[in-house]
Amino acid sequence: MKIGIFTVLFNDWSLDKVLKYVSGLGYEAVEIAAWKGSNHIDIEKILKGGATEYKKTIEKHGLFISGLSNHLESQLVLGPLDSSTDEQYKGTPEEKVKYGTERMKKTVEAAAALDVPVVNGFTGAPNWGAWYIFPASYEKIFEEGFELFAERWGEIFDFFASHGIKFAHEVHPQEQAYNIETAEQAIKAVDGKKEFGFNFDPSHLVWQGIDPVVFIKRLGERIYHAHAKDAELVKENLPVSGRMPTGAWMRPGRGFRFRTVGWGDVEWKRVMTALLEVGYDYVLSYEHEDPVMSREDGVEKCIAHLKPLVIKAPLEQVWW
Amino acid sequence: MKIGIFTVLFNDWSLDKVLKYVSGLGYEAVEIAAWKGSNHIDIEKILKGGATEYKKTIEKHGLFISGLSNHLESQLVLGPLDSSTDEQYKGTPEEKVKYGTERMKKTVEAAAALDVPVVNGFTGAPNWGAWYIFPASYEKIFEEGFELFAERWGEIFDFFASHGIKFAHEVHPQEQAYNIETAEQAIKAVDGKKEFGFNFDPSHLVWQGIDPVVFIKRLGERIYHAHAKDAELVKENLPVSGRMPTGAWMRPGRGFRFRTVGWGDVEWKRVMTALLEVGYDYVLSYEHEDPVMSREDGVEKCIAHLKPLVIKAPLEQVWW
Amino acid sequence: MKIGIFTVLFNDWSLDKVLKYVSGLGYEAVEIAAWKGSNHIDIEKILKGGATEYKKTIEKHGLFISGLSNHLESQLVLGPLDSSTDEQYKGTPEEKVKYGTERMKKTVEAAAALDVPVVNGFTGAPNWGAWYIFPASYEKIFEEGFELFAERWGEIFDFFASHGIKFAHEVHPQEQAYNIETAEQAIKAVDGKKEFGFNFDPSHLVWQGIDPVVFIKRLGERIYHAHAKDAELVKENLPVSGRMPTGAWMRPGRGFRFRTVGWGDVEWKRVMTALLEVGYDYVLSYEHEDPVMSREDGVEKCIAHLKPLVIKAPLEQVWW
Amino acid sequence: MKIGIFTVLFNDWSLDKVLKYVSGLGYEAVEIAAWKGSNHIDIEKILKGGATEYKKTIEKHGLFISGLSNHLESQLVLGPLDSSTDEQYKGTPEEKVKYGTERMKKTVEAAAALDVPVVNGFTGAPNWGAWYIFPASYEKIFEEGFELFAERWGEIFDFFASHGIKFAHEVHPQEQAYNIETAEQAIKAVDGKKEFGFNFDPSHLVWQGIDPVVFIKRLGERIYHAHAKDAELVKENLPVSGRMPTGAWMRPGRGFRFRTVGWGDVEWKRVMTALLEVGYDYVLSYEHEDPVMSREDGVEKCIAHLKPLVIKAPLEQVWW
Amino acid sequence: MKIGIFTVLFNDWSLDKVLKYVSGLGYEAVEIAAWKGSNHIDIEKILKGGATEYKKTIEKHGLFISGLSNHLESQLVLGPLDSSTDEQYKGTPEEKVKYGTERMKKTVEAAAALDVPVVNGFTGAPNWGAWYIFPASYEKIFEEGFELFAERWGEIFDFFASHGIKFAHEVHPQEQAYNIETAEQAIKAVDGKKEFGFNFDPSHLVWQGIDPVVFIKRLGERIYHAHAKDAELVKENLPVSGRMPTGAWMRPGRGFRFRTVGWGDVEWKRVMTALLEVGYDYVLSYEHEDPVMSREDGVEKCIAHLKPLVIKAPLEQVWW
Amino acid sequence: MKIGIFTVLFNDWSLDKVLKYVSGLGYEAVEIAAWKGSNHIDIEKILKGGATEYKKTIEKHGLFISGLSNHLESQLVLGPLDSSTDEQYKGTPEEKVKYGTERMKKTVEAAAALDVPVVNGFTGAPNWGAWYIFPASYEKIFEEGFELFAERWGEIFDFFASHGIKFAHEVHPQEQAYNIETAEQAIKAVDGKKEFGFNFDPSHLVWQGIDPVVFIKRLGERIYHAHAKDAELVKENLPVSGRMPTGAWMRPGRGFRFRTVGWGDVEWKRVMTALLEVGYDYVLSYEHEDPVMSREDGVEKCIAHLKPLVIKAPLEQVWW
Repeated sequence: MKIGIFTVLFNDWSLDKVLKYVSGLGYEAVEIAAWKGSNHIDIEKILKGGATEYKKTIEKHGLFISGLSNHLESQLVLGPLDSSTDEQYKGTPEEKVKYGTERMKKTVEAAAALDVPVVNGFTGAPNWGAWYIFPASYEKIFEEGFELFAERWGEIFDFFASHGIKFAHEVHPQEQAYNIETAEQAIKAVDGKKEFGFNFDPSHLVWQGIDPVVFIKRLGERIYHAHAKDAELVKENLPVSGRMPTGAWMRPGRGFRFRTVGWGDVEWKRVMTALLEVGYDYVLSYEHEDPVMSREDGVEKCIAHLKPLVIKAPLEQVWW
Repeated sequence: MKIGIFTVLFNDWSLDKVLKYVSGLGYEAVEIAAWKGSNHIDIEKILKGGATEYKKTIEKHGLFISGLSNHLESQLVLGPLDSSTDEQYKGTPEEKVKYGTERMKKTVEAAAALDVPVVNGFTGAPNWGAWYIFPASYEKIFEEGFELFAERWGEIFDFFASHGIKFAHEVHPQEQAYNIETAEQAIKAVDGKKEFGFNFDPSHLVWQGIDPVVFIKRLGERIYHAHAKDAELVKENLPVSGRMPTGAWMRPGRGFRFRTVGWGDVEWKRVMTALLEVGYDYVLSYEHEDPVMSREDGVEKCIAHLKPLVIKAPLEQVWW
Repeated sequence: MKIGIFTVLFNDWSLDKVLKYVSGLGYEAVEIAAWKGSNHIDIEKILKGGATEYKKTIEKHGLFISGLSNHLESQLVLGPLDSSTDEQYKGTPEEKVKYGTERMKKTVEAAAALDVPVVNGFTGAPNWGAWYIFPASYEKIFEEGFELFAERWGEIFDFFASHGIKFAHEVHPQEQAYNIETAEQAIKAVDGKKEFGFNFDPSHLVWQGIDPVVFIKRLGERIYHAHAKDAELVKENLPVSGRMPTGAWMRPGRGFRFRTVGWGDVEWKRVMTALLEVGYDYVLSYEHEDPVMSREDGVEKCIAHLKPLVIKAPLEQVWW
Repeated sequence: MKIGIFTVLFNDWSLDKVLKYVSGLGYEAVEIAAWKGSNHIDIEKILKGGATEYKKTIEKHGLFISGLSNHLESQLVLGPLDSSTDEQYKGTPEEKVKYGTERMKKTVEAAAALDVPVVNGFTGAPNWGAWYIFPASYEKIFEEGFELFAERWGEIFDFFASHGIKFAHEVHPQEQAYNIETAEQAIKAVDGKKEFGFNFDPSHLVWQGIDPVVFIKRLGERIYHAHAKDAELVKENLPVSGRMPTGAWMRPGRGFRFRTVGWGDVEWKRVMTALLEVGYDYVLSYEHEDPVMSREDGVEKCIAHLKPLVIKAPLEQVWW
Repeated sequence: MKIGIFTVLFNDWSLDKVLKYVSGLGYEAVEIAAWKGSNHIDIEKILKGGATEYKKTIEKHGLFISGLSNHLESQLVLGPLDSSTDEQYKGTPEEKVKYGTERMKKTVEAAAALDVPVVNGFTGAPNWGAWYIFPASYEKIFEEGFELFAERWGEIFDFFASHGIKFAHEVHPQEQAYNIETAEQAIKAVDGKKEFGFNFDPSHLVWQGIDPVVFIKRLGERIYHAHAKDAELVKENLPVSGRMPTGAWMRPGRGFRFRTVGWGDVEWKRVMTALLEVGYDYVLSYEHEDPVMSREDGVEKCIAHLKPLVIKAPLEQVWW
Repeated sequence: MKIGIFTVLFNDWSLDKVLKYVSGLGYEAVEIAAWKGSNHIDIEKILKGGATEYKKTIEKHGLFISGLSNHLESQLVLGPLDSSTDEQYKGTPEEKVKYGTERMKKTVEAAAALDVPVVNGFTGAPNWGAWYIFPASYEKIFEEGFELFAERWGEIFDFFASHGIKFAHEVHPQEQAYNIETAEQAIKAVDGKKEFGFNFDPSHLVWQGIDPVVFIKRLGERIYHAHAKDAELVKENLPVSGRMPTGAWMRPGRGFRFRTVGWGDVEWKRVMTALLEVGYDYVLSYEHEDPVMSREDGVEKCIAHLKPLVIKAPLEQVWW
């Protein structure tokens, strides 16, 4: 297991400054945001021959790229396709789908050019507002989302396959596959295509009351990438604000918030144990969305917390 | 405190049969569904002079009407205004708003004609899919909902005022006011108009991790009606399905489901105590949405559970 | 086990009205407040030949007297001897002690005259303000209380002995013996005199975090009387008010309050089981100090809760 | 669901007295101990033509037989075969196996004669002392038990099949199938023969920390009979005595003990709900092994607790 | 946030030895006991021109003074005024009040001379024994304490104001303001004078069941100083000894005891997060009263525990 | 308190390699397996004059021997005496007992020769399968085990006494003394002989639900050695597998497993505190039986976890 970092949090720093800083702290891998607006990569350039030099930039700091991430554009394949995604691409729903699909494919090509085996992202969802299943018509709406998912993403996964790259969907509220059940349903919807798997992120599970360890044990073979992110049900706020607070992430009264690794409710020792048990031995990539402490506080505290929890090897055999 | 029942669960029974059954079990009040499709009332008829006779039908069973409820049509005032509400009214968003507003006013008139002091319902929400506040644009979308709420409902509340009737919004997922914070924000949005209050229903709070007792203590003066409904975080399913399960209400694997009073996670003694403390002395109206047991099982178990918990009077003074 | 009631809560009702009411509800015994100010007995009169008639009054309702209680005057033996007890007796500390001692003895004589085997009360404490053991000098002050206890109460217990009556001290905050440890220390201080025992009351234990069942198992042989009283750590108030709230009993924000049996934190099935295990087979006497619900609510709910929990007999032998 | 009772606890009463007593309390079925020593049936007599009369005896009290139970003799098929079972049959291990097998078959014949569809019992286990898997050799020993189980019981199950009777093994410590995992392993060992199923008894599960509801949901189709028995991890004793206390069942210090229904740790509402969900609609048979309260206390408290929890019917369809 | 230490625990060491030791361990500030008997300062000397040299002594070890503390003498302003405070000053109650008031003022002058912005202490309480509110007369007694507090301390706070110094009362059992409610009541009693604030110490809150984070969020602006002290509800003792144990701090059976930071029940990550949220960025001063481990053990373990929990900066803005 | 290690986990490494490795990590003591098959010692050779050289081997790495351990052979004294112990010695039950007894005595002699004060081991149990106390005959069988224990071990303890060595029995399932109650019963069975004491190992206690701290406080004077071993009730498996899982230690579905120190349910701060309180100041010896992580992972994580928790000295006196 290696500890990596999703560099997008320092999008306002030069890539070089980021690489120097994080490698100096002991991080071993970087996950790079591939969408337009990312200052750490331009996948068009990569596809025009920039791959080798880009890789060198990374490697000279003793790092490697664990995954290209494109959560913002991948989401356009299924939606939301209303004005809320205009920042990513302004257009009709059809145009958004087309744009999202194209950008996904380019990200795949860039990953291939950079020898990066995984692309992380969101599948999107045509109508996440339908999750509550009331009125009854919502049930049908939500179920139809899986058909659309199979139709639109199925073809993209074939493109992944032809390039030897995997897609790691981040199981997350507002996405078609948001819990263990829908993750399994999504696999079934695409007939178990191996290119479709998950970017395990415990923070989105704990706030739903889902045990991340159960996720690992049931979907372990499909975990292609992983995020180190913690989340906190805020004890003093929960009785008022609940688990589904709207409003700004930094307002103090929220009943739920993301936290730096080790400062939330994720039981990291159980998580590390389970990842070892299912044989996941790739990267745990730090994502900072803690609304309380500074980015540097988070980055430094995360590695300090996780390093001692890395298990180098499983037990070979019972010796006793 | 009186124990009542929301008769809509027996919409396939004649009103008379329902009244006979529930009064025989000890229920003291009925809450009547006023939307089109309800077989227990036709508010058009009420408005055309049928009120007196209707009241007599109720009273001859020793019952009274605690509230007229119109959750399905009231929701059209704010939304969702897409195809998911076509069953209530098929039309453009504008037409839906207009229809919802008109039906609300008729419900108010019917309540006035029947001497019923409260109309229960949902305010609706223009875009509940925006609750997650990611991407960032969602924050603005959700906040704008309150402006729309003030604009569209403000005028309706004035209509309520002119008839001496109160509106009791059921704080509920998918509605603009869904937790304590947003309930308070909604009050503020309409400048504290007294016609706007709540139909307290603990089932929607416990699944969000909100303490129903805190709701009572903070919003007690605005509780105009109350539902007796229980909810269960299903222990054996929660680690897989989580608190936000989609899919049919009757499928067995759900991490959350509604339950008959006394069979879920609501702490009824604390709830009854708190209602007494804030001086709520009206009706607790049973709503059956338990996907496990039959309607009759629910109706009989509810009254058996709640009757012994009714507190007749507060302590007058410390005597010790 | 019989269910009784401490009648003092109806001090503003005539004794006859009380007896009629409680026997009608199924209560089997009464505990009578013997201090001056009680309207249900005048022990001076009892001592002047009124005993037989008084007993008849009780018995004609099918009741018997489980104990005479004199918490207010017994407390004067040790204190507090400052102005806070002026309501019981106005005088110098020495006068208060003398008065308290005399009243205790009279209560014993009255009990003997009425064939009541137990007198309930408080031992008092010379300086309960010293409980915190800071500054260090408090430690000595609290320990000295036991010497005083042995000295003043030792002689009184001899008086009890000569009349064949037992004293049941209610283990309670502000008393010299307030938890299990100090109860055991108090027994030791009077060399284990058998006249000294306890009026078991779980409400005072749960708020200290003491398990009432451990009390029963360790001090079972010394339990001469028992109170049925519940207590609640008020979940929604505890984080602010804590376990030691000052201020009026009826103010709504308290972190701790007494409750009607079955509405608080006492685990009554465990308590009933343990009382059976140690062989306590006397009276469980309801005491109402619930600041929320009316006295009648409490009295009726208590008997409804406890009657089904009465275990008629222990298992005679293992039959399996 | 019907509430029945395992009459063996009143083996010292005449059958008639038992039937009169339990039917008077509202019990609807009886489970009869079929082993030698039972005073409530003699299966030899049943096989010699006594079945009709015996059934009449039961039916005249409005009862029916839910199952014949033979835990003591069935156990001899696998063991323990040492002196600890001499009370059932004194002989060599081989003789014990033979005797146990024969008695099982006779019980089947008796059940058939009485139109009773289920025989309850234990499969036994050749070496339950090997459960701890230390030293390593124990692992093999325990696994071999399943082979023996398949060999010896497989043939007996064919005998069951030929008579149209089912065997309901009680999952229980000291038996080859004692938890959910081994229950499933046992089914597999006999190639899923339908005659092999379970007598669900939550008391043996809760003390192992197993959720009885998970048992029901995973093995629901194989539940052929059920026991109403509760169990308590004794809070005040657990830290010293633990979950595996040896020593007499009636000694007060045990960390674990069986309890009357409603007085232990079994969550009966969850259990009743789950039984309904899997479609179990047969009998819940009270078994009294509470070391604290008398048999009559148990029998009366059990029915009082369970009757209000019986769910008459599942919800037919979502009406909302 | 800086980590400091209350040096009084090494009153038997020379100040120089203490400063060298604690600065060597990484402590950044010292809190100095100012009462008579302290060997680390003599405020009379400070007032006679010794301030500059004294400050130099501190600063040459790279430390600064976070506060002057005078818990023992400040308490005399309100009490207890009986023999329990004779060690501080022997005299009549009036003399004690006068002495305490004068000593407070001198401490203020010394703080001003040393450029120390805060004086820590206790307000005292005229009759802490009255906390239980039984008998009813206690309610009035406790309430009157606030009047006395306003009268005696109001004038002292004006003296603080004239010197630009703040008073930080430690919310603590046996003091007039001992929980969140009474802290707020005390602020109100002195009309919100800004000189009156708090020395936040979570150890006194957790044992009352109060959430220290709620304290921080409600009283954050009034926190002028803070103690790093932990406390433990001793699991194995609690069922017997309870939360209010008398007797020596070192006896092993206590249900409550103070602990070294990180060895008790305080949730330090939540505390550190909340202090950051309310903008407290001064000193967290270690106070050792752990009855188990040596002072050096405590001092070394505290800094090792807290240093990694210091958050350097809040998040500037949401970057995601 | 010193941190040591039970070297048997590296039985496939040379002793020298082990000593170098563990001393390099900061371990201070070694516990050596003395049974036949151990590659780290040959007690026959020790008894033939090899003691001095052996000690030198240990000491040259700055280590010392905390205890000789002989769990496998000591067990033969009481049993199990069936085929499950054939690996230790093949023979009749009588021969096994004889062999076990002789090996124990040799271990004692070796300990004496090496100046090692403690021999660790298991007492064994004649019939651990009888722990469940059903059928009733098991009660007698289990009780007789103590008589046998006194008879066979009593004499061996005298042999210990004559050599000035203590026996530390590891309280463990499958042994005659497996919880606190039976440990106390065993002491009584040998009339309190001081040579009989315990090797405290919290892992065997937590899985039984026993509080290790209560063990320490009740049996502290008899703790002659201690193991640092952790254990985990595996949350995601417990509801299915329970606390008593059979089957291979490495299978992933077990409800219980041993863990590396700090990765299980043992509360090490409470344990360290309690050991200090009872004055245990010898060795805490790491035993690795974690079925998940490699031996080196365990050894390194253990010392990293425990070192910061070592308390150097108790508090000398209350200074505050």
